[in-house]
Amino acid sequence: MPIRAEIIAVGSELLTPWRLDTNSLFITRQLNLIGALVARKTVVGDRAEDLRASIARALETSDVVFLTGGLGPTTDDINREVVAAVLERPLRLDEQVLEKIRRRYQRTGMTMPPNNQRQALVPSGAQVLPNPNGTAPGLMLEESGKLIFLLPGPPRELEPMVVDQVIPAIRTRLGTETTLYRQLKIAGEAESRVDFLASPIYRSYADVETTILASTGIIDLFFYWRPLDADQPEAEGHRLLDELVARVRGVLGDLVYAEAEQTLECAVGELLRQQGKTLAVAESCTGGLIMQMLTEVPGSSDYLLGGFVTYSNQAKIDWLGVKEDDLSVHGAVSPCVAEQMAAGARARSKASIGLAATGIAGPGGATTEKPVGLVYLGISDGSGTESRKLQLNGDRAVIRIRAARTALDWLRRRLV
Amino acid sequence: MPIRAEIIAVGSELLTPWRLDTNSLFITRQLNLIGALVARKTVVGDRAEDLRASIARALETSDVVFLTGGLGPTTDDINREVVAAVLERPLRLDEQVLEKIRRRYQRTGMTMPPNNQRQALVPSGAQVLPNPNGTAPGLMLEESGKLIFLLPGPPRELEPMVVDQVIPAIRTRLGTETTLYRQLKIAGEAESRVDFLASPIYRSYADVETTILASTGIIDLFFYWRPLDADQPEAEGHRLLDELVARVRGVLGDLVYAEAEQTLECAVGELLRQQGKTLAVAESCTGGLIMQMLTEVPGSSDYLLGGFVTYSNQAKIDWLGVKEDDLSVHGAVSPCVAEQMAAGARARSKASIGLAATGIAGPGGATTEKPVGLVYLGISDGSGTESRKLQLNGDRAVIRIRAARTALDWLRRRLV
Repeated sequence: MPIRAEIIAVGSELLTPWRLDTNSLFITRQLNLIGALVARKTVVGDRAEDLRASIARALETSDVVFLTGGLGPTTDDINREVVAAVLERPLRLDEQVLEKIRRRYQRTGMTMPPNNQRQALVPSGAQVLPNPNGTAPGLMLEESGKLIFLLPGPPRELEPMVVDQVIPAIRTRLGTETTLYRQLKIAGEAESRVDFLASPIYRSYADVETTILASTGIIDLFFYWRPLDADQPEAEGHRLLDELVARVRGVLGDLVYAEAEQTLECAVGELLRQQGKTLAVAESCTGGLIMQMLTEVPGSSDYLLGGFVTYSNQAKIDWLGVKEDDLSVHGAVSPCVAEQMAAGARARSKASIGLAATGIAGPGGATTEKPVGLVYLGISDGSGTESRKLQLNGDRAVIRIRAARTALDWLRRRLV
Repeated sequence: MPIRAEIIAVGSELLTPWRLDTNSLFITRQLNLIGALVARKTVVGDRAEDLRASIARALETSDVVFLTGGLGPTTDDINREVVAAVLERPLRLDEQVLEKIRRRYQRTGMTMPPNNQRQALVPSGAQVLPNPNGTAPGLMLEESGKLIFLLPGPPRELEPMVVDQVIPAIRTRLGTETTLYRQLKIAGEAESRVDFLASPIYRSYADVETTILASTGIIDLFFYWRPLDADQPEAEGHRLLDELVARVRGVLGDLVYAEAEQTLECAVGELLRQQGKTLAVAESCTGGLIMQMLTEVPGSSDYLLGGFVTYSNQAKIDWLGVKEDDLSVHGAVSPCVAEQMAAGARARSKASIGLAATGIAGPGGATTEKPVGLVYLGISDGSGTESRKLQLNGDRAVIRIRAARTALDWLRRRLV
C-alpha cells in the first residue's frame, strides 16, 4: 500500500475567486517521486472549527497530513493553535526560535513587532523545521505513527523546506518506495497520433506506469518505475526505462525535442547557437508571439537578430519586399507570401535563416476558401525557400499559439 | 447568516502535480455576487469511499454542496452513484435525457456508444439541468432544506450552467442577499500608491467592502455593497457605489483605464479606433511582447500597422534608422535610441504614432550604470518625439511584462 497523504491549505484568501492553492501541486510532485499518493486536497478558511474538523478527519484516513499557510504573526494565523488543540498538546514559547526571529529583524535594521512572538509557539513534542527564507519555521509532529507537517504558505519558503526537510523525514520515518522516471517532450504532432505510435511499446512494459499530457501543441510523456518489492534493484528500473525510452524514440523520431523539462524555444535556441546560425522572423497572424517566445530565453540575442510583425499589406511590401501583385492575386494568406516573408526577413537582416507565419487567427477575416485556422509557414535559408500549409483548430489565442509552436518546431526539425 | 457553500471537485487527475481545480474560482465568484460564501473546497479522487465521506461531511456543515466533474460515461465517473447512495435514493434511467444524448450523437453522424447510457441515470427526485454544451446534464437535489448540485467538469459546460440555472435556483430556494459591486481597472502605478490614494476615501464608506488585487502592473479595485437588512433599498447601494467610484476616480484620474473587466491592450485599441489613429511599434527588450499583447485583440489590424523587433544593433540601424553614432556613444539602452526607434517605426510605417521600448530584461547584459530593469520608452507622433525612463523590479519575464504594460499605458494616457 502506498503512503496516503492529505494536503490542507489554510487561508480565507484561498476561498475567494482569485486565489488557487498551487503549493499542493509542488507537494504532490515531490510525494509522487517517493511513491506516495495524495488522496485528498482541502482548502479551508481561517475558522478554527472548520480547520479542526478537517485535521481530525485527515488523521483518520491518511498517513501524512500537510497544513500549508496559517503560520503568520496575526490572530488569523491559527494553524499552530488548532493543531495543538486537536492533538491535545500544550503550546510553549521556543526561545531558540524566538531568538532567530529577533535576529532576522535585526539584520534588516528593524525591531521585532510583539505580534511575531506567536511564530515562536511550538506544540509540545513538535520538531522545528528551520526556515532560511522567512520568519515562520515549519513544524513536524508524530501522532500514533502518522506525520503532521505545518508549512509556511509562501512558495519560496515552502518549496525548499519540502525538498530539504519534509521528504527526507517521510522517507526516514515511514519508509518509502523508490520511484524512477523518464520524461520525453514532443512537439509538432497530435496527442492521439503520439499515443497511437507509443502505446503499443509502453503497454508492453507491465512494470512501467505511463502518463501522457498535452498542452497546446506540446506533449509530455512520463514513464514511472517502482520496484515490485524491496529486493528488486534500482538498476533494473534504470535498464527498463532506458530501453523503453530508446524504443519510443525509435518510433517518434525527431518529434521528440527533449528528455527533460525544457521549452521548445529553448531547444531551438540551443541548436542555433551550436550551429552558429542566426535567425530573423516575419510574423502576421502570430502578431509577435514567435519572437516573444524566442526572446523569453535569456541570451537569445546571440542568435536572434530581430523580427518584423507585418500586420498590414503595406508593411509586408515595404519592410519585407513582398510583391504587391502576389498580395492582390493570392492574398496575404498564401504559400508565396509566406515564402516571400521568410526570404525578406532573411535578406533584410542578413540572418542565416528567415522564418515566417501568415494566416487567419479569427474570429473575423475568413472567407469560404480561407477558413479561420488556415496558416502558411515559410522558411528561407542558404539552401532555398519553402512553405507549409496548416489548418489549425481552436479560438484565436489557441490558433496563434499552435501556429507559433509549429513554426518553431519546423525550424527545429530542419536544424536537427 | 450568509449561505455557506462547499465545492467538491472530483477526479483523480486533480490529485496529480499538473492539474488544478479552477472551476471553483468561477463558482465562488458567482456565489459571492449573491452574498453566499464558500466555506471549504475539497478535491477527491475517483474512490467512492473518499467521495462518500466528503459529501456526507459537506451536508453536515453547508447549505449548498457542489460536486464538479465525475459525470462522464466511464466507470470512473461515480458522482451520480455515490450521491444516490449517500441520500439513499434509487437511480433510474431518464428516457428524455437518454434521447437527448442519442440525438447529440446523431447530429455529428455518430452512434451513441452503450457507455453513454450511464449519463442518463438520475437519482430519484433530482431535477435535470440541461447542458446545451455537452453530453452530461447537471443535476440538482434537495435534501432537508439543503441543495446539492452535480455539474459537468469542462468549464465551457459548467460556467453557463452555473449562471443560467444554478444561481437562479439558489436564489429561488434559499433566498439570498443582493450584492452590488463596482470594479475599477488601474494601470501605470504601484499597488501601494493606489491604495494610499484610494483608501482614505473607501475606508469612510462603512457599508462598502473593498478588495484590491494587483497582478504585474494591473490593479483591480472591487467595491461591494450588501443591504444591512431586507428593507434597505438597492437604490441606496447604487447611489453609494456611484458616489464612491466618482470620488476614487477623482483622486486616481487617468490611472483608471476601465470600469469593467477589460485588458489594457483592448482599452488602447478602442482609443486608437475612436480617434482614427494608426500605430507601429519598435521593440528591443520586450522582444515582441507589446505587439503580441496588441494583436491578441480581434480586429487589431484596423489600427495596428506592424512592429519591428530589433534585437541587434544592426537591425536598429537598418530597419529603424537609429544612428550608429548614438548606439556607440549612448548605447542601445538610452533615451535617444528609444526616441529614434519610435520615430523610425512611425516613419517606416507611415503610422500616426510610433511606440518603442529598449532596456535590460536580464539576467545578463547589465553594467554598473545600466542595471537589470532599466528600460527607456519612446513615443513619436505628429506633435513630436519623447522618451521616458523606467527602473523595474522582477525577473526577466516580469520586467518584460511591466515594460510592455507601462508602454501601453503611457500611450493610453496620451490618447485620453
